[in-house]
Amino acid sequence: MGQVFLLVGFSGILALIYAMMAYRKVSGFRVDNERVEELSSIIHRGAMAFLNREYRWLFPFVILVAVLLTWKLGLPTALAFVLGAMCSAVAGYIGMNVATKSNGKTAYAATRGMNPALNVAFKGGSVMGMAVVGLGVLGILVCYFLYRDPSVITGFGFGASSIALFARVGGGIYTKAADVGADLVGKVEAGIPEDDPRNPATIADNVGDNVGDIAGMGADLFESYVNSIIAAMAIGVIVAGGVGVAYPLVLAGIGIISSILGTVVVKVKEGGNAQAALRKGTFLTGALMMVGAFLATKFMMDDIALFWSVLSGILVGVLIGWVTEIYTSADYKPVKQIAQATETGAATTILSGIAVGMISTVVPVIMICVATLVSYKFGGLFGIACSAVGMLSITGMTLSVDAYGPIADNAGGIAEMSKLPPEVRKITDKLDAVGNTTAAMGKGLAIGSAALTALSLFAAYAAAVNLQAIDLSNPTVMAGLFLGGMLPFLFSALTIQAVGRAAEKMIDEVRRQFREIPGIMEGTARPEYEKCVEISTGAALKEMVLPGLLAIVCPVLVGIFLGPEALGGLLGGAIVTGVMLAIFMSNSGGAWDNAKKYIEEGHHGGKGTEQHAAAVVGDTVGDPFKDTSGPSLNILIKLMSVVAVVMAPLFL
Amino acid sequence: MGQVFLLVGFSGILALIYAMMAYRKVSGFRVDNERVEELSSIIHRGAMAFLNREYRWLFPFVILVAVLLTWKLGLPTALAFVLGAMCSAVAGYIGMNVATKSNGKTAYAATRGMNPALNVAFKGGSVMGMAVVGLGVLGILVCYFLYRDPSVITGFGFGASSIALFARVGGGIYTKAADVGADLVGKVEAGIPEDDPRNPATIADNVGDNVGDIAGMGADLFESYVNSIIAAMAIGVIVAGGVGVAYPLVLAGIGIISSILGTVVVKVKEGGNAQAALRKGTFLTGALMMVGAFLATKFMMDDIALFWSVLSGILVGVLIGWVTEIYTSADYKPVKQIAQATETGAATTILSGIAVGMISTVVPVIMICVATLVSYKFGGLFGIACSAVGMLSITGMTLSVDAYGPIADNAGGIAEMSKLPPEVRKITDKLDAVGNTTAAMGKGLAIGSAALTALSLFAAYAAAVNLQAIDLSNPTVMAGLFLGGMLPFLFSALTIQAVGRAAEKMIDEVRRQFREIPGIMEGTARPEYEKCVEISTGAALKEMVLPGLLAIVCPVLVGIFLGPEALGGLLGGAIVTGVMLAIFMSNSGGAWDNAKKYIEEGHHGGKGTEQHAAAVVGDTVGDPFKDTSGPSLNILIKLMSVVAVVMAPLFL
Repeated sequence: MGQVFLLVGFSGILALIYAMMAYRKVSGFRVDNERVEELSSIIHRGAMAFLNREYRWLFPFVILVAVLLTWKLGLPTALAFVLGAMCSAVAGYIGMNVATKSNGKTAYAATRGMNPALNVAFKGGSVMGMAVVGLGVLGILVCYFLYRDPSVITGFGFGASSIALFARVGGGIYTKAADVGADLVGKVEAGIPEDDPRNPATIADNVGDNVGDIAGMGADLFESYVNSIIAAMAIGVIVAGGVGVAYPLVLAGIGIISSILGTVVVKVKEGGNAQAALRKGTFLTGALMMVGAFLATKFMMDDIALFWSVLSGILVGVLIGWVTEIYTSADYKPVKQIAQATETGAATTILSGIAVGMISTVVPVIMICVATLVSYKFGGLFGIACSAVGMLSITGMTLSVDAYGPIADNAGGIAEMSKLPPEVRKITDKLDAVGNTTAAMGKGLAIGSAALTALSLFAAYAAAVNLQAIDLSNPTVMAGLFLGGMLPFLFSALTIQAVGRAAEKMIDEVRRQFREIPGIMEGTARPEYEKCVEISTGAALKEMVLPGLLAIVCPVLVGIFLGPEALGGLLGGAIVTGVMLAIFMSNSGGAWDNAKKYIEEGHHGGKGTEQHAAAVVGDTVGDPFKDTSGPSLNILIKLMSVVAVVMAPLFL
Repeated sequence: MGQVFLLVGFSGILALIYAMMAYRKVSGFRVDNERVEELSSIIHRGAMAFLNREYRWLFPFVILVAVLLTWKLGLPTALAFVLGAMCSAVAGYIGMNVATKSNGKTAYAATRGMNPALNVAFKGGSVMGMAVVGLGVLGILVCYFLYRDPSVITGFGFGASSIALFARVGGGIYTKAADVGADLVGKVEAGIPEDDPRNPATIADNVGDNVGDIAGMGADLFESYVNSIIAAMAIGVIVAGGVGVAYPLVLAGIGIISSILGTVVVKVKEGGNAQAALRKGTFLTGALMMVGAFLATKFMMDDIALFWSVLSGILVGVLIGWVTEIYTSADYKPVKQIAQATETGAATTILSGIAVGMISTVVPVIMICVATLVSYKFGGLFGIACSAVGMLSITGMTLSVDAYGPIADNAGGIAEMSKLPPEVRKITDKLDAVGNTTAAMGKGLAIGSAALTALSLFAAYAAAVNLQAIDLSNPTVMAGLFLGGMLPFLFSALTIQAVGRAAEKMIDEVRRQFREIPGIMEGTARPEYEKCVEISTGAALKEMVLPGLLAIVCPVLVGIFLGPEALGGLLGGAIVTGVMLAIFMSNSGGAWDNAKKYIEEGHHGGKGTEQHAAAVVGDTVGDPFKDTSGPSLNILIKLMSVVAVVMAPLFL
């Protein structure tokens, strides 16, 4: 078995080597345009400043929790927690660092053609993707070899989850405050276009894209990734001993190798289809993973039953991404219906978007149920955990594709701001459009994987507290279920309100600069970009505290005062309403966004009409839905579950 | 024990006698104004026509279900089902009949002063309140004496639930289609005021208030009322035998007597406070109920533990109503915040209303949990059921107050349309304003009682299928929980879309009449009111079918294909997300409504400003939230639970 772990460790190191090489390549790409360099560097500095301050805020929190964990659960769990938090932070740091360097380089590369631009953007994204899986697998292995106890490793997952929650909530608030501030004052009041360098909030807006979509998404998937593996190991050791610990790790290792091989085919000819190139890479990775999982199951297990569990996870992950696209892309009926509803005003636009988001829960929920039941049939609770690992095993590839999106988006902004020729903007626009589709699929995957990961953590919790049953007909459990079901609603409301408060501050500042800086509208004076970055940063950090603590404190309180069964109910309730609200809010938001873009393409009267104004209302409502509350809910349910698993010994 | 039942039956008869006397008094009140008479009679005919057609649609459905029940569960259950459906229909019919007669009489009585007007309106409402409790108690008694088997009586509850669901969904679609049609074309496009007789949809709008708020609310509370009693009897017979059957009925009987005594003090002096009069009546009823419940518990039970269960139900009912008012009345901060948000446009208005609605779930959920845990501590599962009975025992009074609201609202409309002097309108406005507050409390009570009733039905289901546990750590149960949690989202989306479709038809028709009927705008030609009534009626009946069937078919399918444990999970999931969404949607809608009214009173610029336009968007989004989807969810969760209880033998 030792050799198996060695091979898995080797795959993790390979991922880091890949990330390092990709990083070098991107860094080595020279940009010969002063304006591009300057803008990219402002965004880079703003993003890194946010991360630095965020980590400085989180440092005392991590220490405090570590002390409490040492006191209550012993040093090993506390150390694992710190390591998990550090790995997540480092992965976020590396990913953000390279992503905010790649944006300007992508814009400049676009002056040479489509393939160089795609190459830089995707390479930049892949640094993040590979860093996440490499650090994830190696971190888990280190913890396991130090203590040989899967229950200690849950501390590692707890650390990753904590960072992820703050990154998602903070990042989500940051990006939307900047976005709303830039749009409302710049576009609406001052009447200047998006990404106009005269807008003081435009840099904060671009920084926000990175803070939310790169660091937030990276921490989110890092968390899903490691927790799915950890939950599988925790259940695996109970049902199958050593091989139960090794099997999930082997799946992860195969996923890394498949991802690396998959990246090789992501290339496009001049005038070719970037979307097809990314899809080819993803499909190749998926196919290799399936073959690898089959062989691994055949050699490690008595029969291939577990393979079906893994397969169900991979397939459902792909299918949920696809359904997400149907409900949020303007190529399909739902978004067109929302665009149609703009004909009768803002109210009907809102109602039809809400209805689309609510209905979009149906198919993903049925698929999650099918995956759960199928994988349970073939592999028991361990099967469920392995299906989550299957879904997430190709994170190296999917996250690379995901992270590519905001890089391409930023590249477009930089091209605009530094007045590169229109054919450059055309290329970045094409890359950006592809990014929107991949983002939809990525969001679907994030939700699906969150649901399955939370379900396997739930199973791990049930095993850890060793309950006969978490009996719904016991009123204490039912009370837990109600309290748990309420938390995602409270959490969503708090994050929506936080965005509102932060956006207000931003609006005030942008108005002040327009008023007080002479020459700003003529483009002769430089706006104080840094002030806006500072406001978003400060507000995001302040506002992330309450929702973040809620997620950690509630399960502990319920476990202590109402007991482990009620805590089981709490988790069940939170997972169910959390998944529903996450799908609903993300998809409503995505659909409104694309309905607005669809109208801007000239449908229903196009820009400047009343229909467009109604669509803008929808889009603005959707912003915190899809970029703050929705994605944060993914983490909420995982974090609450992992808190329950880690703290389980306290409730016995 | 026989004498006890006799006394309960006597209280039921008393309620019906009270209703009959009140009906006579209202009918005997002569209106000496032709225009008032005519308008009232058009509304009356429209409302009764809707009810007649609805019942005709439901007739084959009731027969079909009865045949299926006879085949699968035997004739007694089928007969109980038919009786339950009939009692609900008759109660709705009586209530609607008198309410639509009282509106014109209230308007005319207002020419004589405040007290006569309040008297007529409240008497009219009390017919509905007393008919519901009288028919409820007597129907249950008849079923019990015919078969002496609480499990058969669940068929009665099933019948009541089915009618309630269709009444709520159909009524909700009817009222909002008419409302939106009347507002969008009349107020916005043609620029004529609300309740203007030139608007062809104005009668349909007034009919809709009755169809939604009288028939819908009546069927809703009839259902909660009988099902809470039935669930308590079903559990009671298991844990305490005969006295367990009698005790809930006795509570109901005491509630009826208390309600009748409470109505006596609802009087107001000229220039006095109508709100205070209604509150005095409600408090007196509540106080009498508490004393009665204490005495009944002392004499019927070994100790008074169960009294605490009942008391927790009564108190939580009152408190939830109070919390609802805080979140939806312009006297408190949340609505003022929404009004403030109109300063930055429609999008922020929507977001802040959504946040208010979501946050408003917190306190009610905690209170429901407290009631559940307290009543369980003192009386086990039977205690939970008795707390629901306690909350609903004073339905006779609370529903009278509730039904008063739409009567006063209609009276205002009729006063406007028939051009009664302004001091009359002032009185009806005062009565209407009181109605808005009572409606908020009534809605809170409807949700709270739905939650507790569904929980006791859930307990009855668990007892009926005789499961060791409904174990959340069993993935089949978890899959059921997910599917159940998804249904309220699907159901809400379907009802929102149904309102949209129905409103579109109405808008087309109103536009057509304005275009094609010469002299309509000058007031020389009479609009074709009946056509609009017909459109609302037809659309409501057509659109109620799919959501209605969903509620009945889903539990049966899950029970058959995934088993009784998964069905338990389904119910748990549906109850949790159903309660959350119901509170969220009702309160968001109510808060937007009152934020708009608050602005119309002159705050934030008042009518005609951009702030007002933003508030109108919020109000329009809130309309289907608070009057269609939200209230329908109450019934969805009860109906699914009662279907599970009735069908339980099929899943064993």
